Amino acid sequence: MDTMAMMKSMDMGEMTMDMDAMQECMQSLNACAMAAAMCAGSDMMHGPEMATCCAMCSNMVEMAQATMHMMMRPAGMNMDVMNAMMTACMTMGKACAAECRAHADMDEMCRYCAMACDDMVMKCEAMMASMSA
Amino acid sequence: MDTMAMMKSMDMGEMTMDMDAMQECMQSLNACAMAAAMCAGSDMMHGPEMATCCAMCSNMVEMAQATMHMMMRPAGMNMDVMNAMMTACMTMGKACAAECRAHADMDEMCRYCAMACDDMVMKCEAMMASMSA
Amino acid sequence: MDTMAMMKSMDMGEMTMDMDAMQECMQSLNACAMAAAMCAGSDMMHGPEMATCCAMCSNMVEMAQATMHMMMRPAGMNMDVMNAMMTACMTMGKACAAECRAHADMDEMCRYCAMACDDMVMKCEAMMASMSA
Amino acid sequence: MDTMAMMKSMDMGEMTMDMDAMQECMQSLNACAMAAAMCAGSDMMHGPEMATCCAMCSNMVEMAQATMHMMMRPAGMNMDVMNAMMTACMTMGKACAAECRAHADMDEMCRYCAMACDDMVMKCEAMMASMSA
Repeated sequence: MDTMAMMKSMDMGEMTMDMDAMQECMQSLNACAMAAAMCAGSDMMHGPEMATCCAMCSNMVEMAQATMHMMMRPAGMNMDVMNAMMTACMTMGKACAAECRAHADMDEMCRYCAMACDDMVMKCEAMMASMSA
Repeated sequence: MDTMAMMKSMDMGEMTMDMDAMQECMQSLNACAMAAAMCAGSDMMHGPEMATCCAMCSNMVEMAQATMHMMMRPAGMNMDVMNAMMTACMTMGKACAAECRAHADMDEMCRYCAMACDDMVMKCEAMMASMSA
Repeated sequence: MDTMAMMKSMDMGEMTMDMDAMQECMQSLNACAMAAAMCAGSDMMHGPEMATCCAMCSNMVEMAQATMHMMMRPAGMNMDVMNAMMTACMTMGKACAAECRAHADMDEMCRYCAMACDDMVMKCEAMMASMSA
Repeated sequence: MDTMAMMKSMDMGEMTMDMDAMQECMQSLNACAMAAAMCAGSDMMHGPEMATCCAMCSNMVEMAQATMHMMMRPAGMNMDVMNAMMTACMTMGKACAAECRAHADMDEMCRYCAMACDDMVMKCEAMMASMSA
């Protein structure tokens, strides 16, 4: 299954953006949602000291998914909404990465999740810089 | 099942906000997500002239759900993230309401959905005005 | 916002079912998803003894939402899929209610959630009994 | 980001299953959810003849995501629930693939989506065959 090829065939409607940047952004949002879902699932088995991590990662999953799905619905493309949602997603990504890095005894999930959040923030910045309406 | 009573018993962590405003906001976000889901489901059966409505309503569902769920995870409460997500949700709500109202032959679903979006935007404004960190 | 009135106006396609039973089922699925989301959000702040409850409630949220949304997409109605998804949702609801009831020091969230799961299972049974293709 | 390595580090709790089969299943569920989301987003821009495809693909997204997330929450692992949810997901996958293949003028999205559904059904079968409680 070549997801990248599938993404390239999407008709993105009237907004103008760098299609490669958007494809990389969608893949990074997806990787971030998966990493945060695994991190949250692991956090549940630990004590209350992982409560913030678990809650933030659970928020991250839904926000990354919603942002990615928005990019997959070209008929609803709207510059103001896209900017606001990507801003929210990046704000969450920074907070989630900081939280995951803060654990003294950070486990493997948290390290992966922080990296996935960082990458997502970077790819969103690149896509936002290329968008215009 | 008394959902309001259940909401009142939540421990909201360190952020300060008007709990009644947040409860009304969560209920309005939920009503908005349901109305938009029904509107999108109805739009699918119509022609391409409902494509924008269908896509925007589908986006609205995920954003309203994510915002509501964020309020239900007190351990992850973060003022910057909450502000950014509520701003995104309200931006979507205004665009979705405008789209639903634009149909000359607006059906009952679209009217309900526009009203639910308006109410959600109003309740989010009230909650945001009461928040501090 | 009168969600019940909105539900009544949906065109449910070719499947035959009791529309009142389906409306009650959707409302119960929604209440169950909200209760389970709040229960999971509360569980995160407790110790590992709430890990199973948190994970099951998180599963419950997604399954109840998916089942409710499926009912809101009449164009995709399919008897085999609906039966299989409702069966999965009810299986989860029974397991989730049992878990929530098992806590010796059960908090208010768990009691609400168990009741919401029970009600959802009952309403799904009633709707399934009324369906035919 | 090496998602496969991250998956391998998960603690899957008390259920016994082939971990390689589960990892392949999660990746296939994720690819299926992405393909179906893109297919639904594309369908919205076409006429009512794509209504069933759009609705089924939208259902597929939520069911594949819910099933994948359930596998990422080891604390909530339950054999009955997992069997029921995987059965529902596979039933949906078969119906969705059949619908996508039925379009005389099938577009590229539908072909990808049908392939992704087929692969997901196959990987779920392999994982289910390896599970025991």
